[in-house]
Amino acid sequence: MQQLILAALLSAAVTILLGPVIIPLLKRLKFGQTERNDGPRSHLAKQGTPTMGGIIFLTGLTAGTLVFTVSGSEFAIPALLITFAFSLVGFLDDFIKVKLKRSLGLKAYQKIIGQFGIALIVALYCYYGGLNDINWNDLSQSTNVLIGSKIYLPFWDVELELGLLYIPFAMFVIIGAVNSVNLTDGLDGLASGVTMIYSVSMSLIFLFISNELGQAGKVYQSAAASGMIIFAGSVAGACLGFLRFNSFPARVFMGDTGSLALGGAIAVMALFSRAVLLLPVMGACFVASAVSVILQVGSYKLRKKRIFRMAPLHHHFELKGVAETRIVSVYMIITAVLCLICLLAYA
Amino acid sequence: MQQLILAALLSAAVTILLGPVIIPLLKRLKFGQTERNDGPRSHLAKQGTPTMGGIIFLTGLTAGTLVFTVSGSEFAIPALLITFAFSLVGFLDDFIKVKLKRSLGLKAYQKIIGQFGIALIVALYCYYGGLNDINWNDLSQSTNVLIGSKIYLPFWDVELELGLLYIPFAMFVIIGAVNSVNLTDGLDGLASGVTMIYSVSMSLIFLFISNELGQAGKVYQSAAASGMIIFAGSVAGACLGFLRFNSFPARVFMGDTGSLALGGAIAVMALFSRAVLLLPVMGACFVASAVSVILQVGSYKLRKKRIFRMAPLHHHFELKGVAETRIVSVYMIITAVLCLICLLAYA
Repeated sequence: MQQLILAALLSAAVTILLGPVIIPLLKRLKFGQTERNDGPRSHLAKQGTPTMGGIIFLTGLTAGTLVFTVSGSEFAIPALLITFAFSLVGFLDDFIKVKLKRSLGLKAYQKIIGQFGIALIVALYCYYGGLNDINWNDLSQSTNVLIGSKIYLPFWDVELELGLLYIPFAMFVIIGAVNSVNLTDGLDGLASGVTMIYSVSMSLIFLFISNELGQAGKVYQSAAASGMIIFAGSVAGACLGFLRFNSFPARVFMGDTGSLALGGAIAVMALFSRAVLLLPVMGACFVASAVSVILQVGSYKLRKKRIFRMAPLHHHFELKGVAETRIVSVYMIITAVLCLICLLAYA
Repeated sequence: MQQLILAALLSAAVTILLGPVIIPLLKRLKFGQTERNDGPRSHLAKQGTPTMGGIIFLTGLTAGTLVFTVSGSEFAIPALLITFAFSLVGFLDDFIKVKLKRSLGLKAYQKIIGQFGIALIVALYCYYGGLNDINWNDLSQSTNVLIGSKIYLPFWDVELELGLLYIPFAMFVIIGAVNSVNLTDGLDGLASGVTMIYSVSMSLIFLFISNELGQAGKVYQSAAASGMIIFAGSVAGACLGFLRFNSFPARVFMGDTGSLALGGAIAVMALFSRAVLLLPVMGACFVASAVSVILQVGSYKLRKKRIFRMAPLHHHFELKGVAETRIVSVYMIITAVLCLICLLAYA
């Protein structure tokens, strides 16, 4: 618990201190956001706000994770690497958008290859690798405890064996999470605020998991889970620090550099906890963004009619006249309530 | 832990559900806010927003506290009563302001009598009453464990015996907290947001205290402290729910009904935890409001010069051109960081 707090404080501090250094740099390098022309009118004022601010909180969460996971980095370091891998895809996208003035960034097939490639590697890592419950006397009896082909259904306390289906399932979770967070990142402080609340909750869930594993005598797994406490806490701290600059009116946007990174972090927290079925509940706001886009596009293709004034959902509310700050507050409050409900399965 | 989450969820739910019932009622009864003419210009738009919304979250926190403190209400019920007592003073003030159009509400001497009276009763309760560590074999050996004349200095793990001085000290804490929160309540979501973070942290501190007392075999005290876990969690949940309506742009203000209640709750959490010396750290934003007013008034009386463009401090930043929402975010982030630091003493 103490290390969780220290990790969160360190990543928040690094993020807050780096902000005034990096934001002017991004501005000078002209990494300014070009607002989409068809977006809400009020967003035109945001033109010129520097983007790619994700690198600020990435530094923070890296510091927090690396400094405090000495005793259990088996999962925390892979989690960090996955976050970086997605951040890199996002960074390329941002960079091409801004520097080459190609308004939509990476080409669709390039994004798909990047995301699918990383997702496949992560899914295979979860399935085959992970940390085994090693039976030194009979190695064939070793079973994978934290991640593997089984997922866990809290509340009912049921384990579901997915077998090889785990691999496409995990890929779907990863790609879904990454793109949902990316879509959610459209209002000041929205993606960072919701992710902060999600990560605080996941750090507590990992705390419970780690304690339970420790009591069951599974010391290796307990240590690995404890590393994820730190990782989740660092993500939360980094988001807290980033809100210093990202809350309305934002001085910097995270860009795809940030939102794909957070999406990767969220997916990996869900998969490594095995409670991946909680993700659509705790991350309902992300799901709402993705589903609203799918419905909108589907409805327009099939019926030539739109369901929402604009997708993702938060822009629909905006165009209906709800203030940007109120939408962000309500998304955060909904996330907090849903996360508290999910925590009941462990507390 | 489970009961803490349930209490927070219940008080948030009650608050969120009551909002749409009570806000129109307050509007119809014309409990609208009259903005001070000398305040920031941007606040003129807030004219007509209903006030006295504190009664919404008071109902929520009462529900949460009463339902879940069955096993340890020795401190939770007094805490609730003290919150109500201050709320009543605030309500009278609000009511006179709005209904009798007497712009400053209760007269100064009436407020002082009300606040001092309640503070004296609470201080005496803490000093003489509270829950004793009863030694049934030798009653003269019974000592007061949670509250009493000793206060606790975390980090150094030192107990300070104040003797009879505890009574004026506690009164100062109570009156200081109540008026500081009252002064802090000037921007949308400010007092409720900061109090939410403070209360979440206090509920965790009471969790640690209760566990420690339980391990030391002090079952009565542990149960009493566990009631305070619930009380603090309910305050946090109620604030979370209230932010649904109170975050920028606010649909309702809490009024003195709300801010004096929250001030009372904050003081009582600090005193009952005995870690009252953490209050000025965790509640640094409240202290900043109070101190800025004192400095401003003092400087003007002594030197005929103002230190701040306007006091309390948040209005100073507003007049310097910082966006209202950003001030609120920064106050909340500072509070979160300071609370995390204070939690280190217990975690």
